[in-house]
Amino acid sequence: MFYTIDILGTIAFSISGVLVALNKRMDPFGILIIAFVTAVGGGTLRDILIGHTPVSWMENMTYTYVIIASTIFAVVFRRRLDYLRKSLLLFDTIGIGLYTVVGVERGVLAGLDPIICVALGTISACFGGVIRDILCSEIPVIFRKEIYATACIVGGFSYFLIKKLPIEVDLAFAFAGAIVIVIRLLAVKFKISFPSLYKD
Amino acid sequence: MFYTIDILGTIAFSISGVLVALNKRMDPFGILIIAFVTAVGGGTLRDILIGHTPVSWMENMTYTYVIIASTIFAVVFRRRLDYLRKSLLLFDTIGIGLYTVVGVERGVLAGLDPIICVALGTISACFGGVIRDILCSEIPVIFRKEIYATACIVGGFSYFLIKKLPIEVDLAFAFAGAIVIVIRLLAVKFKISFPSLYKD
Amino acid sequence: MFYTIDILGTIAFSISGVLVALNKRMDPFGILIIAFVTAVGGGTLRDILIGHTPVSWMENMTYTYVIIASTIFAVVFRRRLDYLRKSLLLFDTIGIGLYTVVGVERGVLAGLDPIICVALGTISACFGGVIRDILCSEIPVIFRKEIYATACIVGGFSYFLIKKLPIEVDLAFAFAGAIVIVIRLLAVKFKISFPSLYKD
Repeated sequence: MFYTIDILGTIAFSISGVLVALNKRMDPFGILIIAFVTAVGGGTLRDILIGHTPVSWMENMTYTYVIIASTIFAVVFRRRLDYLRKSLLLFDTIGIGLYTVVGVERGVLAGLDPIICVALGTISACFGGVIRDILCSEIPVIFRKEIYATACIVGGFSYFLIKKLPIEVDLAFAFAGAIVIVIRLLAVKFKISFPSLYKD
Repeated sequence: MFYTIDILGTIAFSISGVLVALNKRMDPFGILIIAFVTAVGGGTLRDILIGHTPVSWMENMTYTYVIIASTIFAVVFRRRLDYLRKSLLLFDTIGIGLYTVVGVERGVLAGLDPIICVALGTISACFGGVIRDILCSEIPVIFRKEIYATACIVGGFSYFLIKKLPIEVDLAFAFAGAIVIVIRLLAVKFKISFPSLYKD
Repeated sequence: MFYTIDILGTIAFSISGVLVALNKRMDPFGILIIAFVTAVGGGTLRDILIGHTPVSWMENMTYTYVIIASTIFAVVFRRRLDYLRKSLLLFDTIGIGLYTVVGVERGVLAGLDPIICVALGTISACFGGVIRDILCSEIPVIFRKEIYATACIVGGFSYFLIKKLPIEVDLAFAFAGAIVIVIRLLAVKFKISFPSLYKD
């Protein structure tokens, strides 16, 4: 279950990386590198922080194959993806929803405090995109005027609440991921953001 | 003793993070994330480099609670902090003094060479601020025209000199931390900086 | 053999770091820090990813001494290095050639998949320069319109092809490193680059 979610998140983030790299007119190898970094960046930091080395994508080649295949797919069908306009937002949002859940689960497995699990989920979800944006000289996505990390934090905590209900643990994770995705999509659609506290 | 220093450094860096994030008009969650990254960034890199995982703030929740409390405190009293003008410099400087000492001590405990211990102290002290500045699109503090890392390096080496005197090891650390703080404050006050070597 | 390559790469990257830092008019400590980060950045990330901690330069002081000596040498003879015009390109290219080989070898020793070994070689080679450029507010070298990471990837894979020939393994590594250097120098000299895929 979690493994499937991890792979789906990898596909979503790879495609989001390709879309940003294409906009930066990178060459094919540059596109592949950005797709790779976007897809594995967050999980890599999570693995390093909890001491899970060699990191996941080095031991399990599936990630690498999925990223290469997704990149080729996204490059070949780039006109259609481009046509969808909102596609980068969509893939990025699906990615953070899925990776938040994966990160929280890794923390739970490592027996860490719920707050740390939520932090791990947020790191897994957001760090790949942050690296992508820094390498592409974009303003890091978490600091644009949109709800981003907040969606991961709320979704992550919601898992620990949902888990207390008499439902399957897999379902709790699915709900938590959906909450992240819904919060971010609604926030972008309705331009919801927190007020700034500066000189209020 | 060292633990107390670590917590005091965490408070100082959290507040310095809040001040930078407020200036960037971030929302409450953005402010918390910047405070967190500033406070734990340097120690996290230090722990990762020496292989101490899960990193300190994941195993000991005190850091997280202190950062959240400091952030709320700094946000609530932001007008007074703002009024102090030099407050960011002050908290940042106290932070690097305290963290240099903590980093050196961790290196000594790990049996590493004094040069490496000083490097660890400097990394602990400077990296959180560097990450804070990169995420906030500021010029990284260590490369502004001020003595910064130099203060940490000098303070770090001074520990190994002071230690040879017939005094308590805790006092040696306290002196080393004070040296970092005094060097930086004097350098900023009197605008002391190294000459550039370019085309001299 | 590999150790010698590693030290040669450290010298080349230290000098490339000094040259960039001099151009940014940094003070002596800033120059040393940039030289250090450029020289050890890639290897450090490689070590962290495969879980080899404390990282290499903390356990073996030779790296630190070589970096300090190279930095002093480069600063003292900076006018001559400056006179050579292409010196930054040359040292940077020698560095990526040597570090690609070291990174691939570490992956082979750790029993990792050839694709992952090539990724480790590319990370070892490119990451120090990327950090150098981010800290110096330059566009990261891997995303300028030159073949860079591509040379490392091609050179890395060539090792696994050359290794199948009936030759010494050391010679296979030497050839692979030479391939990286030749590809990059030719690409820069003849302005060869991949076409962008954007809106083709």
